[in-house]
Amino acid sequence: MNEFELIARLTRGLATGPGVVVGPGDDCAVLEAGWPEHWLLFKTDAVVEGVHFAPDAPPERIGHKALGRALSDLAAMGGEATAALVTLGVPAPVDAERLEAIYRGLNALATRYGVALVGGETTRSTAGLFLSVAVLGRVAKRGCVRRRGAQAGDALFVSGELGGSIAGRHLDFEPRLREARWLVEHFAVHAMIDLSDGLAGDLRHVLQASGVGAELRAASIPISPAARRRGRTSEAREGIAVPVRPEGPPPLVAALTDGEDFELLFAVAPGDAVPLLDGWKRAFPEVRLSCIGRITAAPGLRLQDQHGVREFTGAGYTHFGA
Amino acid sequence: MNEFELIARLTRGLATGPGVVVGPGDDCAVLEAGWPEHWLLFKTDAVVEGVHFAPDAPPERIGHKALGRALSDLAAMGGEATAALVTLGVPAPVDAERLEAIYRGLNALATRYGVALVGGETTRSTAGLFLSVAVLGRVAKRGCVRRRGAQAGDALFVSGELGGSIAGRHLDFEPRLREARWLVEHFAVHAMIDLSDGLAGDLRHVLQASGVGAELRAASIPISPAARRRGRTSEAREGIAVPVRPEGPPPLVAALTDGEDFELLFAVAPGDAVPLLDGWKRAFPEVRLSCIGRITAAPGLRLQDQHGVREFTGAGYTHFGA
Repeated sequence: MNEFELIARLTRGLATGPGVVVGPGDDCAVLEAGWPEHWLLFKTDAVVEGVHFAPDAPPERIGHKALGRALSDLAAMGGEATAALVTLGVPAPVDAERLEAIYRGLNALATRYGVALVGGETTRSTAGLFLSVAVLGRVAKRGCVRRRGAQAGDALFVSGELGGSIAGRHLDFEPRLREARWLVEHFAVHAMIDLSDGLAGDLRHVLQASGVGAELRAASIPISPAARRRGRTSEAREGIAVPVRPEGPPPLVAALTDGEDFELLFAVAPGDAVPLLDGWKRAFPEVRLSCIGRITAAPGLRLQDQHGVREFTGAGYTHFGA
Repeated sequence: MNEFELIARLTRGLATGPGVVVGPGDDCAVLEAGWPEHWLLFKTDAVVEGVHFAPDAPPERIGHKALGRALSDLAAMGGEATAALVTLGVPAPVDAERLEAIYRGLNALATRYGVALVGGETTRSTAGLFLSVAVLGRVAKRGCVRRRGAQAGDALFVSGELGGSIAGRHLDFEPRLREARWLVEHFAVHAMIDLSDGLAGDLRHVLQASGVGAELRAASIPISPAARRRGRTSEAREGIAVPVRPEGPPPLVAALTDGEDFELLFAVAPGDAVPLLDGWKRAFPEVRLSCIGRITAAPGLRLQDQHGVREFTGAGYTHFGA
């Protein structure tokens, strides 16, 4: 049983209520708050030492990552964040300076996006440090984008560059809150998700939720410099190329399956593709946007490269293996 | 530095916003949601294997406790809960049956209080299991009770019976949501807190927040049967009392300092004391309510017993020691 099957099994038949617009199974919970034009967004996320960050990771970045992951999920609904609560699991002996630095990282990111940090709990941890962040926000009802909603023929876009996040970006990414809000304000986004488990894995979540398939053009997938560097199989020494053992998978595989890109993957009607690319370039000249393929009525995920079209069966990152 | 000093240090100068009615330092965060008569309540709480429950604790009770702790905090504001999110840190190998039983415990309690479980995340844990629960709720603006607000002369009340929770009740308590809502609907409650760190420790939070002191009558403090049993220094064998090594502290000390009672401690004007006791007895005949003392202008916490009045310096439970 992998992580997603386990979650599906655990969240079957849970207590629900009349105010639940979107329950388990999307990037955030969406709740009716009695507001005329908005819904409430609600999300928690945890990072664990030795799983999501190394013991020697700069503590400011640990705080940044913990809040950034949850903000990335709010972005994926087209929403904005308003308030957050932090739970810290603290190993003995307590390193107060490390905890203060974690809070500095949390606070800097919260300040940048207008998120009030309205509480902080601490508890003991019997192993490494863990941080759980709960975030509240809101989303315009007509701009709320779910995983389901992708339609055959839709153009598939991804922001930024993918793969190799483990080399450093996983601690240092910027949640795409501004870009996502711009998107939903200017275009009818059919489906959106943030990339936490890898492009292939997260795209499969969208395809499953939408009941469709997709075909990706390998040459259009934006590969990060870190993924290229880590996948390098030769290097120049004294002007001569010599084979080296690669640090990571081949760059395209890394872009398809590495986790923690925290970029936006979304689908729009094909007629929106060109105006979207044009508008994005003016609004966010520093953030790459790539049209990587299209949604198909036929289920499955296919990859088109110089050898033709083939089924892509590689998985994204899962916490418990297959 | 103890837990409370650490939290105070960490939460100093955090990002805030115009919608924050109550930020760090009370039982819940209170947020302006634009509703005419209510505020939004927001709370997270975590339980950790080996800290808050033993590895062999019945898993349904672990789920019950994780959600119950957060609900108890909402009760302490006079509020009600509407939705919750669950983050599970799962050690390898994954024990799916244990996780399902935890969710059954969560779900049973959520159903009882009309709380929608709107999402469940899982992540890996490198040590034991942990659960972090985030809860949303609401509170009537005119019934929202904080820790501050206790006034000299106020009568101090506590629900239930205190001490010895470790013997089992810490896994099996009922959050006092109904009792707290009844209280704030019928009386002007000046200050309230739920007992998680022990009567003396939590009362000190109220006294500090309110800038007052208190005097407790030792004989009025409701001591649980578990605290009496654990504090027993002799037992009858063949009709003869023989000395035994006590399992826990003396019963009164246990009632004052044991953690995890999850009962309500609150202050009301002295004129409300008798009608409150009468009304409570009719509304909740099965839940004991005790008037344990009074708020004083003089700071400090004093205990009155057969030997007179003395300063009580014992602490409640803290996670990191003094």
